[in-house]
Amino acid sequence: MKTLPELLKQISHGVYVISVCDGELSNAFTAAWVMQVSFSPLLLAFSISPMHRTYKLLGRSGECAINVLKQDQTALALHFSSSNLNKMTDHEWQFAKTKSPILSESSAYFDCKVKQTITTGDHVLVVCEVIDAGYLEQGKPMLYCETGDMDGSSQFFK
Amino acid sequence: MKTLPELLKQISHGVYVISVCDGELSNAFTAAWVMQVSFSPLLLAFSISPMHRTYKLLGRSGECAINVLKQDQTALALHFSSSNLNKMTDHEWQFAKTKSPILSESSAYFDCKVKQTITTGDHVLVVCEVIDAGYLEQGKPMLYCETGDMDGSSQFFK
Repeated sequence: MKTLPELLKQISHGVYVISVCDGELSNAFTAAWVMQVSFSPLLLAFSISPMHRTYKLLGRSGECAINVLKQDQTALALHFSSSNLNKMTDHEWQFAKTKSPILSESSAYFDCKVKQTITTGDHVLVVCEVIDAGYLEQGKPMLYCETGDMDGSSQFFK
Repeated sequence: MKTLPELLKQISHGVYVISVCDGELSNAFTAAWVMQVSFSPLLLAFSISPMHRTYKLLGRSGECAINVLKQDQTALALHFSSSNLNKMTDHEWQFAKTKSPILSESSAYFDCKVKQTITTGDHVLVVCEVIDAGYLEQGKPMLYCETGDMDGSSQFFK
């Protein structure tokens, strides 16, 4: 008999670092709930907890970068899932068309402008238009189902 | 240099059959754009083209099942991506808490009630509450990035 958190691992998600910059403030968080939602215009959507510090920053900047993590980057995923105030230091960032920071260690990035935000349950769904995208480092994308209970998400099922 | 369709394969999606029943009418289609969007209530979201016959049916029924395909089920994915009028015959279906048909060959199913629909670009995002879920057949979920250009999606990038 499978538990609900085990069953949900049948829904395939990758692992990403979503990064935002507003003036001198920047932040980033690890996300798994990311998908494409439209071909033309090219739209991606992600789901974010409104409790995240990055959520407020995103509301002000209206822009973000979705950075794809590779299979060997579990430490990076853990780092950006922490609530540490200085997560951005000790990592190399690039800047593309929008002002969002792009994580140089990621395999690929999608530089985005926020188009819609919709409250869905305990999260907010953010729909973004892809303004620019690029390939940075060779590697297979990390799959969320391979991370075990890295983020402790099994505790969130009521 | 990677093309945009190649870059988008860095966003991890699974492959699913989404099935709907309204009275004596039923239909199903192959989808890749599915993700979790909330823990409590447990919500999944998928993106559907409003041109799909299943979309109209979904508008009337307000319910659907999201069936997870396994790695060896490429033929099944192709079958349900066709516009054939008789896709539902020759397959075994089960019925769970809602009236949505559940594909017996899939590895797991999520029996859902539609909560929100939001137009996002050329698709409609459907947010569903999971009413019931179950595990059917052992197997690793199929990944969309492993299907090549099975669905001919590279033509949709303008």
